[in-house]
Amino acid sequence: MTAFASDNYAGVHPAILAAVAAANDGHVESYGADAATIRATALVRERLGLGPEAAVAFVFNGTAANVLALDLCVRSHEAVICTDVAHVHVDECGAPERWLGSKLVPVPVPDGKLTPALIDAAITGAGDQHRVQVAAVSVTQSTELGTLYTLDELRAVVEHAHRRGLLVHLDGARLANAAVALGSSLEEATRGCGIDVLSFGGTKNGAMGVEAVVALRPGLAEALPWRRKQAMQLASKMRFMAVQLEALLADDLWHANAAHANAMARRLAEGLAAVPGVELAHPTEVNGVFARLPVRALEPLQAVSPFYVWDAPDVVRLMCSWDTAPADVDAFVAAAAAIVADVS
Amino acid sequence: MTAFASDNYAGVHPAILAAVAAANDGHVESYGADAATIRATALVRERLGLGPEAAVAFVFNGTAANVLALDLCVRSHEAVICTDVAHVHVDECGAPERWLGSKLVPVPVPDGKLTPALIDAAITGAGDQHRVQVAAVSVTQSTELGTLYTLDELRAVVEHAHRRGLLVHLDGARLANAAVALGSSLEEATRGCGIDVLSFGGTKNGAMGVEAVVALRPGLAEALPWRRKQAMQLASKMRFMAVQLEALLADDLWHANAAHANAMARRLAEGLAAVPGVELAHPTEVNGVFARLPVRALEPLQAVSPFYVWDAPDVVRLMCSWDTAPADVDAFVAAAAAIVADVS
Amino acid sequence: MTAFASDNYAGVHPAILAAVAAANDGHVESYGADAATIRATALVRERLGLGPEAAVAFVFNGTAANVLALDLCVRSHEAVICTDVAHVHVDECGAPERWLGSKLVPVPVPDGKLTPALIDAAITGAGDQHRVQVAAVSVTQSTELGTLYTLDELRAVVEHAHRRGLLVHLDGARLANAAVALGSSLEEATRGCGIDVLSFGGTKNGAMGVEAVVALRPGLAEALPWRRKQAMQLASKMRFMAVQLEALLADDLWHANAAHANAMARRLAEGLAAVPGVELAHPTEVNGVFARLPVRALEPLQAVSPFYVWDAPDVVRLMCSWDTAPADVDAFVAAAAAIVADVS
Amino acid sequence: MTAFASDNYAGVHPAILAAVAAANDGHVESYGADAATIRATALVRERLGLGPEAAVAFVFNGTAANVLALDLCVRSHEAVICTDVAHVHVDECGAPERWLGSKLVPVPVPDGKLTPALIDAAITGAGDQHRVQVAAVSVTQSTELGTLYTLDELRAVVEHAHRRGLLVHLDGARLANAAVALGSSLEEATRGCGIDVLSFGGTKNGAMGVEAVVALRPGLAEALPWRRKQAMQLASKMRFMAVQLEALLADDLWHANAAHANAMARRLAEGLAAVPGVELAHPTEVNGVFARLPVRALEPLQAVSPFYVWDAPDVVRLMCSWDTAPADVDAFVAAAAAIVADVS
Repeated sequence: MTAFASDNYAGVHPAILAAVAAANDGHVESYGADAATIRATALVRERLGLGPEAAVAFVFNGTAANVLALDLCVRSHEAVICTDVAHVHVDECGAPERWLGSKLVPVPVPDGKLTPALIDAAITGAGDQHRVQVAAVSVTQSTELGTLYTLDELRAVVEHAHRRGLLVHLDGARLANAAVALGSSLEEATRGCGIDVLSFGGTKNGAMGVEAVVALRPGLAEALPWRRKQAMQLASKMRFMAVQLEALLADDLWHANAAHANAMARRLAEGLAAVPGVELAHPTEVNGVFARLPVRALEPLQAVSPFYVWDAPDVVRLMCSWDTAPADVDAFVAAAAAIVADVS
Repeated sequence: MTAFASDNYAGVHPAILAAVAAANDGHVESYGADAATIRATALVRERLGLGPEAAVAFVFNGTAANVLALDLCVRSHEAVICTDVAHVHVDECGAPERWLGSKLVPVPVPDGKLTPALIDAAITGAGDQHRVQVAAVSVTQSTELGTLYTLDELRAVVEHAHRRGLLVHLDGARLANAAVALGSSLEEATRGCGIDVLSFGGTKNGAMGVEAVVALRPGLAEALPWRRKQAMQLASKMRFMAVQLEALLADDLWHANAAHANAMARRLAEGLAAVPGVELAHPTEVNGVFARLPVRALEPLQAVSPFYVWDAPDVVRLMCSWDTAPADVDAFVAAAAAIVADVS
Repeated sequence: MTAFASDNYAGVHPAILAAVAAANDGHVESYGADAATIRATALVRERLGLGPEAAVAFVFNGTAANVLALDLCVRSHEAVICTDVAHVHVDECGAPERWLGSKLVPVPVPDGKLTPALIDAAITGAGDQHRVQVAAVSVTQSTELGTLYTLDELRAVVEHAHRRGLLVHLDGARLANAAVALGSSLEEATRGCGIDVLSFGGTKNGAMGVEAVVALRPGLAEALPWRRKQAMQLASKMRFMAVQLEALLADDLWHANAAHANAMARRLAEGLAAVPGVELAHPTEVNGVFARLPVRALEPLQAVSPFYVWDAPDVVRLMCSWDTAPADVDAFVAAAAAIVADVS
Repeated sequence: MTAFASDNYAGVHPAILAAVAAANDGHVESYGADAATIRATALVRERLGLGPEAAVAFVFNGTAANVLALDLCVRSHEAVICTDVAHVHVDECGAPERWLGSKLVPVPVPDGKLTPALIDAAITGAGDQHRVQVAAVSVTQSTELGTLYTLDELRAVVEHAHRRGLLVHLDGARLANAAVALGSSLEEATRGCGIDVLSFGGTKNGAMGVEAVVALRPGLAEALPWRRKQAMQLASKMRFMAVQLEALLADDLWHANAAHANAMARRLAEGLAAVPGVELAHPTEVNGVFARLPVRALEPLQAVSPFYVWDAPDVVRLMCSWDTAPADVDAFVAAAAAIVADVS
């Protein structure tokens, strides 16, 4: 199967698998006291421009990274502004509400992106004891709609949030794709924009399963080790998670993987845009293509290669990953062209 | 390093690592819809004597398995009886209280084991609206003190709990070690004793990181998929977890690994028991040795090979794992003999 | 001060205060085992057409009644559809999210009322493990905007919700006002429409402070005594709460109080509607008047008699209560006419 | 009925009922913005020696006061040391675990009192990410066993807790009885001993139903208004709660009520101690008598006047309240003497 359903249909990059295998060398300390975890933690800090005291916690998946990151920002009577397509709001089965006890304040957006004006409109009831108090903003970069904040846009959002007394969380499940597309370093894309806490994604970037919660702002995260454990996110054999991130960061594998996925999405977008009857629903700025197809074309095309209908009835999401082959893209475009022609 | 600190200082069994590598074959469905997860789920059911409708959910670690298993048994005003050395009570940073909202009722035990009489004594306030209502019992098999319930003992506890209207959870982080020691199948050790919900452990048995929540009693777990997701325990690339359990179960690797660890612990216990000045603190029934040593011997001996002081000042815990070598054991015993003689 | 700010600026009806005083007669059982609580509970059941087994729990305030009522309907991975002006969503400082762990799904409405079509549109992701599962609908009768569901409208919403497998909660903080306006009994207004769980309001109807959670549908509420206690809502000297509800129900004081408040609102609405430059923002169907006034009139008029601006900049809410005097209404209308003329 | 079952079987002191009635004077601001609440808050601060910025929040019952007070002290991964007879541990249906998400660490005590040594023994796992982190101590004054900390004892506990980095909560449901017995002011009994947060009890002292959460230590409680609201503890017609506390404090009614209850308990204790076959189980230091009676005497004596068996089979608790009459005490003693003689 070659799928465009999700960037986590893809497997593990061979270099990462090799790192996992290499880590399987006798006894080491468990629960993160091992040398690999120490090395990987240092590497994360270095790439994000952080000092040795910055809190970094490896966790199992993106939901946990987001929830624990937000846990550093809000108490239960405080609320989090996000977009109405945010993963934290839509796709985490209410984990934020359950763990944080907090309300999310979803803001309808056409393009997956918050703005200072949208944030202002979403802050209501400040100081009123009957109302939840907005205390944080969660942005996703790159967004759930395959779009990007420019560095200026992101900086503007963060600076505005800070002016309003809010902390800013970045859901970076696809931060690598964003940084590549922006031509920036990981640091420039996060700390450089003033982000306070980060969900740093590894899994969609070619890892087997690892994400990191990173406190970019000092002073938020002394309790993070206990918060992680209580949130059931402390791995016993953590070396096998740590080496995945190490492998991604050490030789800029993260960059190569993301650059490839982005390039494949561009190729796919260009191919599909040229098919009569198909149009792009959002700009293709990273590794996801959102396209509008004739409804009758969807099922036959899904039989060729699985993908999700994103906005019923006719907008589909096509994700490319580190291992998407140009030939797969071209075959899919050709199939789309044939099927769309057929049903039109 | 050769450590007796924990069975999760050990790495991954080569067959499991090979299974993980073999699973890295192109695109497959994410979040558990893949063939490997389906196969592994079926295998778990088969080995536990369960039908195809039985709920099985793979999760990341033992804390999550325990909490989600208990989540099938109690609501927040209901309480869980466990021992005062239970992992759920002592070593999970309050995750059960946090997630369940429930009170744990820890019962002091000398040997890690509950009995019908201890359960009776721990049930108080039944029917009283001011008191939490005991609704479940959590037992650990093999126990945190390296001891074992016989099948008769476990059956007696379960039957008694059922008579009192309580569900029974088994924390089976080391279920494999227990079943081997009991000479029983996994089914006999769990469903055969009437257990209602099971935390089925893989990680300490040679896996990289996978546990399963299994509902042995029908009707408890229709909501388990959502409970797991909301508890931040749904893996995207789940195939890599599933194949670990598959590898453990398929050729009875679980049995071989546990049998080896148990044998090494026996060897270690016998060696230490013969050292003048050392005595066993608990019977060595599975893969852990609890021994009392002269206090002044501890630090020098920990420098030889790391281990934990379990009950200060002088009771230590020494865990053996699937990869503990006889020579490691013998060297440790020899070192212990020398050091103890030296400090006496 | 005569205020139109809220129906809880009003004090306690003399008959209720007398009942409280009369209840102060020596020692009685605490925590609801007293005769007054038993009588009041029976009266609530009778007025709602319920049998002696129906669960009724007196609680301290409306937020608690709503949260505990919803607690009978959903688990944390399940969601509740409500309107975007619902008290549970807007004015309870996130208590539902905190206590239930659940997501609320607010639906924008112009008139405070849900419909079958709106419910259908709000149900998304059914069966998807990544999404919260809608399991209940919360309606407010009369609504936060001073409007009413007709019995047919409410019945249609409930029947549709039931067809979709959802339970229905009615926030009846102003149920008395609604029943009076509908010309229905309390039973017809609730159980007669198929409502499953009810927040029955006393405080805004002339009590000092008491609400009741009532399970109209059998089988939902065996655990309610413990849920209430754990939610910190069990009163020790409960007789003093119980007699308030008893006094409201015994001689249909609830009806007289609500009928008066509704009549005062009608008088106020008619008076204001006749003022040039003032218009009603919603129909005045119960005891609240929503009116649009010139912005410059608001502050001077609030100095005459306090009220809240409901929708900035110019829609105000004016609540009438059991003790609003016709002369107060007339004086307010006259002041409004003078001030509006002045600023125009 | 004259009962010794609980000090909340008693009704409301006439002066408090009068204050409630007097408060029923037209419209006032709701939710605590009214003059009575402002006055009562100021009075609480004054009597506790606090400045105008100190956080005081009136709540409905003792469970809520305790939970919200502890909410100022701990996060969910942090634990609270208390005694094994503490109300927070035994009689709140797990509300602390549910709301705080925290573990309680109950310490067995013979006399209801913690000591520095007991606190030290209960602090385990400090700094260990697998263990909950003890962050607070909860003491009850007077205790659940009718005993008292001397001011020196309490000060020693608090100072030791502070040295260990722990905050100290005082459950003062019967603080008035304690202060009277100690011959101290309310301030000396709390802030004077270094207490950080206080549950200040009104209900058992003759009120209808009101308690206060008071932050004695600055800086803990900026979020208290929202915490209270989210915990479903914000009263709409708060004046009726506030005037109860005002009436208790204004003319030292609190002192008279507690002094009377204490005196009646002393009279009861002396009377019972003189009955052959009866002995006191704990010293009678405030308003509760704990006595050991022949088992066969219990049921006949409970028929005379209700009370609870506290420690089965033969230790009973007899509570006196502001309205216990000397004749009631004498009659009970006489009945006890007769019944005990009869069954011996």
